[in-house]
Amino acid sequence: MKRAVVLLSGGLDSTTAAAVAKKDGYKIFALTIDYGQRHRIEINAAKQIAKALNAEQHIIFPINLRIFGGSSLTGDLEVAKDIPVEQIGNVIPTSYVPARNIIFLSTALAYAETVNAEKIYIGVSAIDYSGYPDCRPEFINAFENMANIATKFGTEGKKISIAAPLAKLDKTETIKLGLSLGVDYSLTHTCYDPTINGAACGRCESCLLRLQAFANAGINDPVKYDKKIR
Amino acid sequence: MKRAVVLLSGGLDSTTAAAVAKKDGYKIFALTIDYGQRHRIEINAAKQIAKALNAEQHIIFPINLRIFGGSSLTGDLEVAKDIPVEQIGNVIPTSYVPARNIIFLSTALAYAETVNAEKIYIGVSAIDYSGYPDCRPEFINAFENMANIATKFGTEGKKISIAAPLAKLDKTETIKLGLSLGVDYSLTHTCYDPTINGAACGRCESCLLRLQAFANAGINDPVKYDKKIR
Repeated sequence: MKRAVVLLSGGLDSTTAAAVAKKDGYKIFALTIDYGQRHRIEINAAKQIAKALNAEQHIIFPINLRIFGGSSLTGDLEVAKDIPVEQIGNVIPTSYVPARNIIFLSTALAYAETVNAEKIYIGVSAIDYSGYPDCRPEFINAFENMANIATKFGTEGKKISIAAPLAKLDKTETIKLGLSLGVDYSLTHTCYDPTINGAACGRCESCLLRLQAFANAGINDPVKYDKKIR
Repeated sequence: MKRAVVLLSGGLDSTTAAAVAKKDGYKIFALTIDYGQRHRIEINAAKQIAKALNAEQHIIFPINLRIFGGSSLTGDLEVAKDIPVEQIGNVIPTSYVPARNIIFLSTALAYAETVNAEKIYIGVSAIDYSGYPDCRPEFINAFENMANIATKFGTEGKKISIAAPLAKLDKTETIKLGLSLGVDYSLTHTCYDPTINGAACGRCESCLLRLQAFANAGINDPVKYDKKIR
């Protein structure tokens, strides 16, 4: 059976990407990076999701990006709240973590080489996103190119490919895709600033995009919110 | 004063690259990745070297690549010994660590973005090397291209560049360059399999390349060897 490494954060997008990998016929090697994120509850979500997906292996890999800081998710910056949804993505927000997806894909590449996986799935989308430069298809292509030059895998004539199955989907389409693949979104965690009991804040950019997408899909978001804003 | 992040392993090459960064007029932000390498003594060497270089900051960043393994430096494979020097580099050896330099440069990129450094120095060379694919100029170019697409830095029109000042130097030329810049090579550590008291084995591919280079330069290698082989 073909093998794929799936970057699984525990959020809605990566969970949907993992479901696509499964549908594509891959044995799943799930990788969750514990990067010191404020919303650590998503790591527990990732564990439940890996189990639900029947992953072959699930590695929680620590890379403490708090050592560098420079983001509201890993440092002292505030998580932005209540931004009008239509303005999200126009500027790079404080939740941008320097080089995060590059570090995540690099780590996934090391994992893929050691378990002999031919594909890496990542749940980035360039639509309905927060404006992070490392979510764009140009980045994914440039990374794939670099990865095939730089690895033993690549130089041996095997090709490693980076799949971003949500690249061209908006979040509503992502949810519809996931539901068609049987994803249980009640297991996922999206909020950047959850309450102590794990409820989503409903006000950070990540919650706002999620809530809008569920509303557009005409489906009830199954996760718990601290304060419903719509 | 311009800022540069320097990937400083504690070895001969990265120390020389750091000296070039200093000569180029950069304030040095040194970054050492503690990746679970067998030859942990090189981390102590890096600390001494960062001090000698008068680095502005020195971060020891843990990324435990032993979690993946797949290399004689991070897993259960044996360190190869006594390979004829002329054969080193013909095949990718067991000391290849999957995606190591990609992970190192990605981490350096996160650091560079947070301290606003415009350049990253890495001491790779495609000559007199162990055959690692992630030491070749094609890789450095592909990484730089990807980095400028994927970061806030890059999208804001600032360019981040990756300097590999040793790319076209053989190890003998590297040593001569370093000496001309005042590098104290007695501080550096090269061996993959040092003795318990820190002496170099003199037999691993890394020692063999170093010994040959010092011999070719007509200079005495100032580090201690367990068993001189030439």
